[in-house]
Amino acid sequence: MNGAESLVRTLLACGVDTCFANPGTSEMHFVAALDRVAGMRCVLGLFEGVVTGAADGYARIAGRPAATLLHLGPGLANGLANLHNAKRAASPIVNIVGEHASFHLKFDAPLTSDIEGVARPMSHWVRTSRAASTVARDGAEAVAAARSTPGQIATLILPADTAWTDADGMAHLPAPAVPSQVDEAVVRDVAALLRRREAPLLLLGGDALTESNLVTAAAIAAVCDAKLMTTTYVRHLPRGAGRVAVPRLPYPVAQALQALAPYRSIVLIGAPPPVSFFGYPNSPSELQPDDCHIQPLAQPGGNVTDALLRLADLLQADQRSVQLQAPDRPSPPRGPLSPDGIGRALAAALPDNAIVVDEAITTGRGFYAATAGAAPHSWLGNLGGSIGFGTPVGTGAAVAAPDRKVFCLEGDGSFLYTPQSLWTQARENLDVTTIVFANRSYNILKGELAMVGAGNPGRRALDMLELDRPAIDIAGLARSFGVPARQVGSLDELNLALDHAVASDGPKLIEVLL
Amino acid sequence: MNGAESLVRTLLACGVDTCFANPGTSEMHFVAALDRVAGMRCVLGLFEGVVTGAADGYARIAGRPAATLLHLGPGLANGLANLHNAKRAASPIVNIVGEHASFHLKFDAPLTSDIEGVARPMSHWVRTSRAASTVARDGAEAVAAARSTPGQIATLILPADTAWTDADGMAHLPAPAVPSQVDEAVVRDVAALLRRREAPLLLLGGDALTESNLVTAAAIAAVCDAKLMTTTYVRHLPRGAGRVAVPRLPYPVAQALQALAPYRSIVLIGAPPPVSFFGYPNSPSELQPDDCHIQPLAQPGGNVTDALLRLADLLQADQRSVQLQAPDRPSPPRGPLSPDGIGRALAAALPDNAIVVDEAITTGRGFYAATAGAAPHSWLGNLGGSIGFGTPVGTGAAVAAPDRKVFCLEGDGSFLYTPQSLWTQARENLDVTTIVFANRSYNILKGELAMVGAGNPGRRALDMLELDRPAIDIAGLARSFGVPARQVGSLDELNLALDHAVASDGPKLIEVLL
Repeated sequence: MNGAESLVRTLLACGVDTCFANPGTSEMHFVAALDRVAGMRCVLGLFEGVVTGAADGYARIAGRPAATLLHLGPGLANGLANLHNAKRAASPIVNIVGEHASFHLKFDAPLTSDIEGVARPMSHWVRTSRAASTVARDGAEAVAAARSTPGQIATLILPADTAWTDADGMAHLPAPAVPSQVDEAVVRDVAALLRRREAPLLLLGGDALTESNLVTAAAIAAVCDAKLMTTTYVRHLPRGAGRVAVPRLPYPVAQALQALAPYRSIVLIGAPPPVSFFGYPNSPSELQPDDCHIQPLAQPGGNVTDALLRLADLLQADQRSVQLQAPDRPSPPRGPLSPDGIGRALAAALPDNAIVVDEAITTGRGFYAATAGAAPHSWLGNLGGSIGFGTPVGTGAAVAAPDRKVFCLEGDGSFLYTPQSLWTQARENLDVTTIVFANRSYNILKGELAMVGAGNPGRRALDMLELDRPAIDIAGLARSFGVPARQVGSLDELNLALDHAVASDGPKLIEVLL
Repeated sequence: MNGAESLVRTLLACGVDTCFANPGTSEMHFVAALDRVAGMRCVLGLFEGVVTGAADGYARIAGRPAATLLHLGPGLANGLANLHNAKRAASPIVNIVGEHASFHLKFDAPLTSDIEGVARPMSHWVRTSRAASTVARDGAEAVAAARSTPGQIATLILPADTAWTDADGMAHLPAPAVPSQVDEAVVRDVAALLRRREAPLLLLGGDALTESNLVTAAAIAAVCDAKLMTTTYVRHLPRGAGRVAVPRLPYPVAQALQALAPYRSIVLIGAPPPVSFFGYPNSPSELQPDDCHIQPLAQPGGNVTDALLRLADLLQADQRSVQLQAPDRPSPPRGPLSPDGIGRALAAALPDNAIVVDEAITTGRGFYAATAGAAPHSWLGNLGGSIGFGTPVGTGAAVAAPDRKVFCLEGDGSFLYTPQSLWTQARENLDVTTIVFANRSYNILKGELAMVGAGNPGRRALDMLELDRPAIDIAGLARSFGVPARQVGSLDELNLALDHAVASDGPKLIEVLL
């Protein structure tokens, strides 16, 4: 068995059985090993941003890492933006990046680059295999690194000769690191704070956002007159009818300040402190009131679930007291398109157990609130802020959950970074409905231009924010990749398109002409 | 004037009047400054790989740098692959990358990343501006770094507050570094080698490939019984009827070894030593024969033009003796599509002074030879080997030379990394004809699989190399971006499409159905 085969067998033994790939010459032995080793599902992407984003979506739904297969430094570079998003979401991913054969590196051939340097800014763990005999062990350690708490981006660089040289065999997953237990003193301090019943806020993120943890948090809130809120963007949030309803911290700074204004204390549970997305000349970076005390329950890497349960015990919080969201499915709205109407149309149409990937930016700002009482579903948001995130993540989510329907809510600007996702969806017949809100501009930037104090844009500045010259036929773009698509110009048409999407399997795209 | 305006004015003063842009919040002040400062042509791209590739193409044709405007670490990351190609081509580029306001960085907001770390592997020069008062000087030094010999990638990172804070004014370009003169001893040694008339090879690349340098090299070759050859890929090569005809080093290792087998000595003139693109288990990395002596005339950064002229003087080489390529324009071929036929169709159709960007990989391997006697044209190749190169580079070349027709020769696999280029071409009404050779596979990888000794691929390996499930409607994809497109299935249809492209202005795409 050569090094490549030892790696494929090791990945499988470590529970990694899905690989999103855009391979080149230096990865051909890994590709060839797929013929000799059964069990690895390899999913091809036309562009590496699709590959890494799909691995992120897969990890969020499957709860375990997929591998990616990427070609040298530039291939990895094309995947970095979505690795950044995945890193911020603590999604576990194992990147396998081919490198020139070790004897070839000194010749500085055209594709030579500092791959470790490319990897480092968007990876927690980086290693170059030194020999075929270490590839299996390196691979197992990469999986272990990815499966840390919180999840990590592990990048293993594989010189071609370590792939084609004989190896000793496969390796097994090292004993996983156990998440550290939160100190009893920390839990007691938080309990003491909450017992004062000064209407604190529990700001929830990351591992706190499981269905059972949300119930625990809601029970704590009920017994202490606390409120719940999630971070603006969430890795994975189970919500809708029958789940705990939690508002989220708004994106616009003015609204976020207003949302946090009532609180003198905020307990962070799996969430970082609330800060604005960007720094602005006339707004604070920190969003809590000046006199607000911020107290973390668990640091990153801590066992949030355990800490929440212990806190609930100390406070004698009773999960049976928790009020769950009642179904609130509106009837399909009629008439002209509006953000509100679209939100209601979504709430009306979402089927049970759907996965919603949210990259709808400006048009979609109200969709979260509008769908609070929709059928139970998972909500996936972009914690890293790099756009081109939604359709790749939806692709990977659909690979992880073939029995669930995926809805990607996309701004047109965002969608156009990684439209190649659609081809992978067609190729794998994934049940993903992409809904693109075509306002034909980088609409968010018009607001940002004002926020940074850049005044009223003139013709040349506005020209950098408009996507209407020429208008892009997004439905036609989808069809060119093999995905059926339709354009809708009213809520009635949108309802029909959504009904069709719910009733039939396979990928499709709805272009909403705003 | 704020920092952003001081930078725009400085760039203009330093001769940088074109900016390829995909901006976000942190770059809004730069965008706003465009309204207050006339003279900067700002060209929008939907994806950063388009932006950086366009800057590469622009630099190759204009002979001076454009700026790029990129959003934070992930935006820069999306542009790295084509920066890698530009770096390998020694194309001068000035990247302006927005960063969070300096006071905001410590809060680790979602889009925070190590931008200098992202920049470094694909940049020669990296700097973060520390204050609004230094932005102008930093910008001038970035331009100076880019305009070094050879050209460099300079990345200037601009914290948002340095853009919006008041600055002192603009800066001017520092005195440019003069290329170092090649030592007289080196020139004399090369002259002595050539005087032995042992039928040496002059391997030409980079700065040696100007029209006048090629004539000088050809005169030297004539007087010393030497042969000329270019590197496999070239930054910019003037060729065709009335120019010096130079064969190129083949890509396939076996052919490259055969091409170099006759030579006992190789003089490198602006070219690196000949090495194979990848390392293979049963092939050498170095392509020259074992007993071949390699002698450089000029090191990178040296003045190649001057060294060539001095060498010609020493050898009493007479430029009047040089034989230039006779016109050899075939009549348009008829019948079914074949690589040979397509090559002849191109040679027949190319108009005077066209720019050809070559990313046709397997289908296009013979196009270079086929077009040797075509109308005079410029040939641009990919020195970095990262695909997704051609249409961005063609876009930038067309911006630099609105009076020339650009032809991008593309494999379908390569084309699909950065198809968003077409929208920029439509928006700017650029005279670019993209010809996509649709074999619906990563055809080159089938050969590479054999070269690396991975044997005959089975079903699962082959599945990673095929793009036919579903077939992608590349003409439809082009139309969705606003570019007129047609499919051709015979040489006769191809001839008609090429005639149409030559006769009319503006972007178009021809999908060649192989």
